[in-house]
Amino acid sequence: MRTSQYILATLKETPSDAEIISHQLMLRAGMIRKLASGLYTWLPSGLKVLRNVEKIVREEMDNAGAIEMLMPVIQPADLWQESGRWEQFGPELLRITDRNNRPFALGPTHEEVITDFVRKEINSYKQLPITLYQVQTKVRDEVRPRFGVMRAREFTMKDAYSFHLSEECLTQTYQRMHQAYCNIFERLGLDYRPVLADTGSIGGSLSHEFHVLAESGEDAIAFSDASDYAANIEKAEALAPKTERAAPSKELNSFATPEAKTIAELKANHGVKPHRGVKTLIVYGAADENERRGLVALIVRGDHDLNELKAQSHDLVHSPLEMAKEQDIISAIGARPGSLGPVGLNMPVIVDHSAAVMADFVAGANKDGEHYSGINWGRDVTDYVVADIRNVVEGDPSPCGNGSLHIKRGVEVGHIFQLGTKYSESMNAGVLGESGKNQMMSMGCYGIGVSRIVAAAIEQNNDDYGIKWPLALAPFSLAIVPMNMHKSHRIPEIANNLYSEFKKAGIDILFDDRKERPGVMFNDMELLGVPYTLVIGERNLDNNQVELKNRRTGEKRMFSIDDAVTEICALINSQ
Amino acid sequence: MRTSQYILATLKETPSDAEIISHQLMLRAGMIRKLASGLYTWLPSGLKVLRNVEKIVREEMDNAGAIEMLMPVIQPADLWQESGRWEQFGPELLRITDRNNRPFALGPTHEEVITDFVRKEINSYKQLPITLYQVQTKVRDEVRPRFGVMRAREFTMKDAYSFHLSEECLTQTYQRMHQAYCNIFERLGLDYRPVLADTGSIGGSLSHEFHVLAESGEDAIAFSDASDYAANIEKAEALAPKTERAAPSKELNSFATPEAKTIAELKANHGVKPHRGVKTLIVYGAADENERRGLVALIVRGDHDLNELKAQSHDLVHSPLEMAKEQDIISAIGARPGSLGPVGLNMPVIVDHSAAVMADFVAGANKDGEHYSGINWGRDVTDYVVADIRNVVEGDPSPCGNGSLHIKRGVEVGHIFQLGTKYSESMNAGVLGESGKNQMMSMGCYGIGVSRIVAAAIEQNNDDYGIKWPLALAPFSLAIVPMNMHKSHRIPEIANNLYSEFKKAGIDILFDDRKERPGVMFNDMELLGVPYTLVIGERNLDNNQVELKNRRTGEKRMFSIDDAVTEICALINSQ
Repeated sequence: MRTSQYILATLKETPSDAEIISHQLMLRAGMIRKLASGLYTWLPSGLKVLRNVEKIVREEMDNAGAIEMLMPVIQPADLWQESGRWEQFGPELLRITDRNNRPFALGPTHEEVITDFVRKEINSYKQLPITLYQVQTKVRDEVRPRFGVMRAREFTMKDAYSFHLSEECLTQTYQRMHQAYCNIFERLGLDYRPVLADTGSIGGSLSHEFHVLAESGEDAIAFSDASDYAANIEKAEALAPKTERAAPSKELNSFATPEAKTIAELKANHGVKPHRGVKTLIVYGAADENERRGLVALIVRGDHDLNELKAQSHDLVHSPLEMAKEQDIISAIGARPGSLGPVGLNMPVIVDHSAAVMADFVAGANKDGEHYSGINWGRDVTDYVVADIRNVVEGDPSPCGNGSLHIKRGVEVGHIFQLGTKYSESMNAGVLGESGKNQMMSMGCYGIGVSRIVAAAIEQNNDDYGIKWPLALAPFSLAIVPMNMHKSHRIPEIANNLYSEFKKAGIDILFDDRKERPGVMFNDMELLGVPYTLVIGERNLDNNQVELKNRRTGEKRMFSIDDAVTEICALINSQ
Repeated sequence: MRTSQYILATLKETPSDAEIISHQLMLRAGMIRKLASGLYTWLPSGLKVLRNVEKIVREEMDNAGAIEMLMPVIQPADLWQESGRWEQFGPELLRITDRNNRPFALGPTHEEVITDFVRKEINSYKQLPITLYQVQTKVRDEVRPRFGVMRAREFTMKDAYSFHLSEECLTQTYQRMHQAYCNIFERLGLDYRPVLADTGSIGGSLSHEFHVLAESGEDAIAFSDASDYAANIEKAEALAPKTERAAPSKELNSFATPEAKTIAELKANHGVKPHRGVKTLIVYGAADENERRGLVALIVRGDHDLNELKAQSHDLVHSPLEMAKEQDIISAIGARPGSLGPVGLNMPVIVDHSAAVMADFVAGANKDGEHYSGINWGRDVTDYVVADIRNVVEGDPSPCGNGSLHIKRGVEVGHIFQLGTKYSESMNAGVLGESGKNQMMSMGCYGIGVSRIVAAAIEQNNDDYGIKWPLALAPFSLAIVPMNMHKSHRIPEIANNLYSEFKKAGIDILFDDRKERPGVMFNDMELLGVPYTLVIGERNLDNNQVELKNRRTGEKRMFSIDDAVTEICALINSQ
């Protein structure tokens, strides 16, 4: 491709509404433009990267025995009503009505449509197992679209669905898809981790997320330093401490804390170290048989954070977790948040394992502006249950039993689920089993955020000058930048010749034939992240040489003009 | 691909709701399934055909210098309001509102979005011309979705848009795209015609449709038998007859026709030959300055059909054409349709050229149950205008001046337009011209119905046994059908070996490894339309031979097992 016939659309300034580096660089490199909130046009160079991802995803899906098909974006409401998700999904499901006033949804995912398809087309165990996939435009009406294509309302996803006669067979396919996902991220050249994950609104019994590691990632991931264990922090188990609780050594004492409503203020104004105090969070309890919901207190150590998913999975707690309104707290306790604690609370109390081994600790006294010191479980608080309700932290022992945990940040780009019979049962998707009886199919589903991978890859691969694409993702493998082409005869001639030869050799090449200053051209190629730039300048030509620059390493290497095409093709194709 | 690991989903019975052959065969061959009215899931074999079309379309677009990008399906309403089409487009534009109650459309086409993109990104004449395209899911809320993917509500389209500084430059690109379209249909192996066409709701000054010829096509196309002239019948000019009108030879006479309300009944009950009578159609006239619309009479020869597009383009007639309500006709004329004619009409009368050269003809007397014979223009009707308002018919002289017209039927699969400045003016899309002044861009747009091509190809290529794919479109080039595989040792061994070798050679191959009777397997391969079937049977193996059957010609040919792969690959790759 010649730049003069292309639409490069690079920007010098960073657009003010782009918060994260991938969004900024995708705009600046001319990969995307915003059409409306959460809706993006992919420019030619952006689309090439997207297609590179799609290609590798398709190849690995095919290798894993999955078969490609294509379902509509527009899905009839009745299927979602049948699965129960028409009600459950909330406003992220973009609902529309057609000219005849019939309700439809724009598909954020296709469990309902594929289950309907399979229940009609697959009748016998002999046709199982089968894995079907598609690469498709998905729609999700995000409450707050942001970060460019990272959290868009319209995006490209690969979604696959597998159907089985047994859970064992599902497990086998799940493992094959897990491996296919690893292959995909390997081939894309990304640093990634598969991690244990929560199943969320999709449901099922087992689930892994695939994260591209990047400091800017929205998710925290916990890894063992001595095993393969890795889990999303929302899913990572915090083991109960092995240490015993110390015996009480202090009396319960109240002290005035009018200026200390947080753990930080307690430390600043009263010298209470965070790990010597506790946080008391009041949430709504699970509904009783009359649909009434009381309050429940959750206690974690002052230096720990509540894990909402763990808390809401507790029998006593309403799911999804909902923090109690201040008015409800005042009515029940007589004090405001900031002065709450476990002593004398008239509601169920759930204490995190790590808080439950504390002795002589500090908490609010359930009177505004007052705290207790010297609190001891058993003596001062007798009625409570102990559970794992906090996020793990750096240094916690790994739940696998080996090593301790480190925390890194990641961008979730894939998610696979063992759904079991959740959808087949609600939608009555059975087959004739070997015994001649009807049997519900077991099901797995496997998603990859294709457009999101593009952004995640940039979060992981960038510097002050722009994007540093891994070769497999790059919009172009090689750029030819001739210096002052319009001032010379031999430079355009040699540049044009090299361009033709590289094209003939099948290299995806961008020839910057604009009449721009060299600095402008170099900046654009670096911003766009082209892995190799071939510089053609007068001085090197005098020695019959051209210079190749490696975007990732910065390394420069000379090639004789005669060997340049052969050697550079070999270099690129060897990766 | 092995059939046992595939989802073939062929059907023996023709689904009752499929009216046309392509819809029937796509369902029976397991290419598509209906999800809801006008919404189809593409099964693996259908999707492969769709991808074959996409691939050729992309290659020819790239060859023509167009650059691929991707715009959102969901488009903000304000752009459509800016172009004026939010009002004009009608209910086929599927309008939706997001969670914040903002209005959007699901894009049936992207003139607004691309014009908005280009006006922001292209600022100087130096960046022109540019042609951008995408292959994308489009949505059109059809009033009556039917014929499967032929007229679906969600479909795949390639749409391209070109931008220019001048009309001359637009014409050049238009011609290049015209050629690219010809290349595409050539390569797809389809019998097609580019024809002059009306510009419809897209607008512009010049337009060609591309039709795949098929007897079942919805459109009629007129061709000259002595030149390249071809036009959609709605656009084909009917030349004025060169013959002079004969002098009157009969008196005006009324006769009772209580049982003759149509041309056919006039012939059956009164012996009036259709070309000796006229049809009188009453429509609404163009609005006057007070927005009042009167009635207008349109007169065509009894054996001719009104051309609505020609009629509505007449100054006197309201556009779009609207037939007058019976009550309005009775109020104005005092008679019902079926007894109307030009004599004594108190409204403007437009007479088709062919009707205007008739003498002594028959028409309604504007009294219920009464007709006139012996009507003569000038003598009995003095106030009328003459225009071309009928469809051409077989044998009419070609408007190009050479030869006479033949009529064939076609399926419209492509449509290209010279839009000129229609959108750039309404949306203020200008660039800095060479003179330094702002100048509106000229624009072309170029659509191909990718999913519709699949159906159109089947309409043109089928027989009683199923689909006869041209090789370029086929889901598989070759099928291996082993006879009674489970009863033999050497048949599965040879079949498996051949399968591996063909795969290694890059042939897209389907290995029918089901334990089915040979007849079932042959029927499925014929239904699916695989161009070549390699039959492996005991008797031929005794002679070290296998048999290749050509689906299109029915021809059978023997190959020695040792040469089969080399020779059959050569045969397939030579096409």
